[in-house]
Amino acid sequence: MITRADIAAANVRIRPFIRRTPVLQLDKTESQLPAPITLKLELLQHAGSFKPRGAFNRLLAAGRPTQGVIAASGGNHGAAVAFVARALGLRAEIFVPETTPPAKIQRVASYGARVVRTGANYAEALAASRTRQAETSALEVHAYDHQDVLAGQGTVGQEFEHQAPELTHVLVAAGGGGLIGGTAAWYAGSAAVISVEPETCPALQKALAAGKPVPVSVGGVAADSLGASQVGALMFPIATAYVAAAVLVTDESIRAAQRWLWDQLRIIAEPGGATALAAVLSGAFVPPENARVGVVVCGGNTDPASIAT
Amino acid sequence: MITRADIAAANVRIRPFIRRTPVLQLDKTESQLPAPITLKLELLQHAGSFKPRGAFNRLLAAGRPTQGVIAASGGNHGAAVAFVARALGLRAEIFVPETTPPAKIQRVASYGARVVRTGANYAEALAASRTRQAETSALEVHAYDHQDVLAGQGTVGQEFEHQAPELTHVLVAAGGGGLIGGTAAWYAGSAAVISVEPETCPALQKALAAGKPVPVSVGGVAADSLGASQVGALMFPIATAYVAAAVLVTDESIRAAQRWLWDQLRIIAEPGGATALAAVLSGAFVPPENARVGVVVCGGNTDPASIAT
Repeated sequence: MITRADIAAANVRIRPFIRRTPVLQLDKTESQLPAPITLKLELLQHAGSFKPRGAFNRLLAAGRPTQGVIAASGGNHGAAVAFVARALGLRAEIFVPETTPPAKIQRVASYGARVVRTGANYAEALAASRTRQAETSALEVHAYDHQDVLAGQGTVGQEFEHQAPELTHVLVAAGGGGLIGGTAAWYAGSAAVISVEPETCPALQKALAAGKPVPVSVGGVAADSLGASQVGALMFPIATAYVAAAVLVTDESIRAAQRWLWDQLRIIAEPGGATALAAVLSGAFVPPENARVGVVVCGGNTDPASIAT
Repeated sequence: MITRADIAAANVRIRPFIRRTPVLQLDKTESQLPAPITLKLELLQHAGSFKPRGAFNRLLAAGRPTQGVIAASGGNHGAAVAFVARALGLRAEIFVPETTPPAKIQRVASYGARVVRTGANYAEALAASRTRQAETSALEVHAYDHQDVLAGQGTVGQEFEHQAPELTHVLVAAGGGGLIGGTAAWYAGSAAVISVEPETCPALQKALAAGKPVPVSVGGVAADSLGASQVGALMFPIATAYVAAAVLVTDESIRAAQRWLWDQLRIIAEPGGATALAAVLSGAFVPPENARVGVVVCGGNTDPASIAT
């Protein structure tokens, strides 16, 4: 299990390359808020999500592999790996399925990565990337299930605690579990870390109920970022020890949270980025009396026209 | 001329009602940045711009006028006055010209104000609002040329100095001059406050050149928020004393700054909100060696589809 010391070491390693994203305190006079909340605006991170933290830590800990890096993802992970590789002067190949929208391909390519569009779905693109990896020996950067990735994502928790030491509860969206695993490892029970997942992507909630990671079917509005079919093996013991509760929210409440962020704050969050807040706004999570609640807004890679109308 | 003491008093008065907007530090590894900059994300303020600061201070200093408030504006000022009136439990009437887009009318109405759509242009809407004001005795809230409005906007400077005390230069967009007047009065020469205006809305630059406020013709992409035809009488002596330089930027550079904010940071700023940053990105303002530059991003009330494509 990764420790606070691992996260602190990651923080030192990645600090020159990442943004210290700001927090915004909202008091309970805000429209529809049941309690004061503090938002961690991690959607302002490079490449539009928290993902570069883990990717930087993975590649820096591996000594900036000169053979380059490879990943399969047309989403936030692929963009982050491409961004990080460019920042470190490394070659990157990103494999994406043929169904990936042109805008996402363009984004990855804009960071200088070679984009390989192949396979009818993610599994086929991943298989092709692994065939290629065997040829090139490029370093594969896993999207969540690696200790250096977890430790890198945990720096979100370290920053947040420093910026808002008074928090009693921290809400984090969960997909494969890198962000919440790292964050829960940082707090280690000193604040109640709550996972929030769409009802349509319940990998962590099902894993906690089963006592082990189990495959789930995924779909819905946030599947592009939270749609892991199973949580990582490395994050699971952390979750068992330090995730205080696993909350589910509806797709409708995620859309409503996206609209709230735009209407009230002029923030564009992607569905996965608004999922943790949806738990507060919908009442899926009811803060106890005198709670000081932190919410991580973890990504902004979406088409604003889908929100602001 | 308003003083730091006036601004500090405004800060105490309005603090329970406004958001302390966060800052984001960007180092010079960021794409296209000639120097490190610190952004003040004032577009995260209530009603999507800095304007509620001045409106709250005006209405609180006036003792929450029970006869209600009145303003003529379909833009950020109208939305802010409507928002502030609702927060203070006061009736508001907002006069807008018939050319005002339905989305802006809907926004003002969403804050509970009575919207009166009248007149072929702003001047006619203003005239109608004054006729009405004579009947109702509602308090007219000027968009910029009132000492309490200036002092309220100056709290942006006070917050920014507290959050980023190392700044040597602070760039602020100028329209009627409320925000830059208040900010310059706060810094009072302790940092170089630089005004940035579109070439198409040069009211402050022309006033400083003429030695007094003079009428200018206005247009271009940021005219909805920066298109005052003349700067305020109260801000002008402040600008003479404490605005270190008046920079102009092209409409194209404003559009480019909006795209940069979205591409690099996932921030949607309106044209007027991106104008100060445009001076840095375009080279209209070149930071001296070792400068620590602050930039106020002052509004986000725009259609994201106009930026993110």
